[in-house]
Amino acid sequence: MAIVVQKYGGSSVADAERILNVARRVARTRDQGNQMVVVVSAMGDTTDDLLQLAGQISRQPNKRELDVLLSTGEVVSSTLLTMALQDMGYDAISLTGAQAGIHTDTAYSRARISQIETQRVVRELEKGKIVIVAGFQGVNDNMDVTTLGRGGSDTTAVALAAALNSRECQIYTDVEGVYTADPRLVPEAVRLPEIGYEEMLELASYGARVMHPRAVELGELFNIPIRVASSLSEKPGTLIHREVAMEIRNKVRSIAHDLGVVKITVVGVPDRPGIAAAIFTPLAEAGINVDTIVQNASIEGITDLTFTVDGSQLREAMAVTGPLARDIGARDCVSAASLGKVSVIGTGMQNTPGFAAKMFRTLSEAGINIQLITTSDIRITCIIAEDRIKDAVRELHRAFELDAKG
Amino acid sequence: MAIVVQKYGGSSVADAERILNVARRVARTRDQGNQMVVVVSAMGDTTDDLLQLAGQISRQPNKRELDVLLSTGEVVSSTLLTMALQDMGYDAISLTGAQAGIHTDTAYSRARISQIETQRVVRELEKGKIVIVAGFQGVNDNMDVTTLGRGGSDTTAVALAAALNSRECQIYTDVEGVYTADPRLVPEAVRLPEIGYEEMLELASYGARVMHPRAVELGELFNIPIRVASSLSEKPGTLIHREVAMEIRNKVRSIAHDLGVVKITVVGVPDRPGIAAAIFTPLAEAGINVDTIVQNASIEGITDLTFTVDGSQLREAMAVTGPLARDIGARDCVSAASLGKVSVIGTGMQNTPGFAAKMFRTLSEAGINIQLITTSDIRITCIIAEDRIKDAVRELHRAFELDAKG
Repeated sequence: MAIVVQKYGGSSVADAERILNVARRVARTRDQGNQMVVVVSAMGDTTDDLLQLAGQISRQPNKRELDVLLSTGEVVSSTLLTMALQDMGYDAISLTGAQAGIHTDTAYSRARISQIETQRVVRELEKGKIVIVAGFQGVNDNMDVTTLGRGGSDTTAVALAAALNSRECQIYTDVEGVYTADPRLVPEAVRLPEIGYEEMLELASYGARVMHPRAVELGELFNIPIRVASSLSEKPGTLIHREVAMEIRNKVRSIAHDLGVVKITVVGVPDRPGIAAAIFTPLAEAGINVDTIVQNASIEGITDLTFTVDGSQLREAMAVTGPLARDIGARDCVSAASLGKVSVIGTGMQNTPGFAAKMFRTLSEAGINIQLITTSDIRITCIIAEDRIKDAVRELHRAFELDAKG
Repeated sequence: MAIVVQKYGGSSVADAERILNVARRVARTRDQGNQMVVVVSAMGDTTDDLLQLAGQISRQPNKRELDVLLSTGEVVSSTLLTMALQDMGYDAISLTGAQAGIHTDTAYSRARISQIETQRVVRELEKGKIVIVAGFQGVNDNMDVTTLGRGGSDTTAVALAAALNSRECQIYTDVEGVYTADPRLVPEAVRLPEIGYEEMLELASYGARVMHPRAVELGELFNIPIRVASSLSEKPGTLIHREVAMEIRNKVRSIAHDLGVVKITVVGVPDRPGIAAAIFTPLAEAGINVDTIVQNASIEGITDLTFTVDGSQLREAMAVTGPLARDIGARDCVSAASLGKVSVIGTGMQNTPGFAAKMFRTLSEAGINIQLITTSDIRITCIIAEDRIKDAVRELHRAFELDAKG
């Protein structure tokens, strides 16, 4: 029998009724003759509720303790889904991350999976059981619980699919797949039936919240086909895999966007070796996710260093960067909020000129000012004012001919 | 340094504010130079909420899954208390039942502790940490989570105290100790500064909800002094221990009562060997806690068998007993609800005549009809109408001279 790994996100298991719906879907796949491993996230807003509770106790909760606390959310939903399946007459068992053999490093709150010992999962599968695994969590060498960071359940699912040589990893969420742009912003947006790993990675990293980037990376590394679909519909979703038909690779695939971006500029930095490391090492150590980094050309040994962070980390980032700026002899350190990112993504852009020019021209014609630009081989990203993001996404969607035809 | 084990019940950790209060109490005991192990229950109504959630999914949730589900409640409170202590500058760590080395049998939902491997707890204590243990739970040989049944956190605490050779086990709850009767019923009731294990065991088993009977048994077995006190006051509570002063042993110590009792009578049972086993074995297997059992003297080989169960188990008990009664050739099986138990308890009654007579006379003078009587060496229990319990407790409290003087 083939092993199918499914993952259901928090909104898919938000209440008893939805858990029963998920159980019916799992049962159907089981009835088709598959061995099943199902990874679940915590119910609805559980993780946020637990974070809030911790916030009432401590301003900066200890990360080991926070991981143990947050891990209970996925344990709860895994037992409930198991009960639902048992009630329908299916043999099922819930396993915590530790029981499922998911070993990680010790980086609490953002642990990386180091190894999966599949013995217990395999033993339960061989007994004919549907195995329900609590997502988002693992255990370090000290047998202490760790969590994999936001979206970690996707990573759990893909990692298990890889370790178990699963045929496919199915990620069920509250959207119907990957679109050419966010359908809430662009009504003309079209669902992509398939997409390559690289493109999906850029999309996931640059604002499309469909899937966690690390899970996509892992899927690419082990060549696990990942299907993203809605747990509330029967539509086929989007298949993320290696072999994407040539003709559809040859263009822009999707427009991604992200809101709540903040720009921090360290002004008048003496341009000498080690300055970038002096700024970004402490930021990384403080757990601040620095995104786009731009350094101006140096004039008379003085330069400006600009980077963006998520708005929620502005205060922390400034608390680290402010004193650092003084230490390294910079003139000032300023921040600008209310920015957004818009990205044009597609492997078709590789080695093909004209995409960047078209993007800049489209934004310019819409009267949208570009504040920062970064690119990868298959992506061009512009930082613009947050209140122009919607216009930008729509204009680019049209300009790159992604609109649904009639 | 002496090791002190403390346990805080659900109402003591019901919200963030109360958890901070508990943290201050733990810190104070720590400051007195003790090594500390603290066992916590789930916050407030968490366990009931989780049970309700399971009930929305399945009418009869699988017990293994239910145990995993319920165990999360204590994990949550243990991490929050740990965070609170860390925030106050104390080094602390939370451990799940499994991490604390609490091994049990596989009787899900009412597991018994088989062994405690204290290595991890001792290691953390030696590092100077306050160890916060999630109560109510353990792990079986398959490394699956088990729970110890209602009140199991008391058992966790006393078992840890025994395994760690603790000086004293302190149980903090929402009452100020053990009283001569329930102070809500008898305003004249007096807190007992000390009480013996046996008496406390009878009290706990016959309605005083201060402590779990199994924890008292364990305390007696390992001779661990147990102090029961309120987490919201500074009063010394009640010390449960072996050496109780002679003069205060020589009388009735306390009046216990219990409401919601149901009586089931199997009428016209052929009186032959094995009949009792034929009835009570299936009841035990169905997890029904049979309490008082009375068998009438047999007349012409026919007898009546009466027993009591908790009102919440009436339906289940009748579902088991009804068919059984037919199978063994009994004439009928009837139940009577709305009963209560009132018990007079004290080691002073041992080998001393007159206590039973005085109890029956007191109830009779108050016009209270006795339906069933059971006794132990140190206890006399009468089953009476539920609506006369209050009167009975008051009259007995007065008759046995337990009222507060002046």
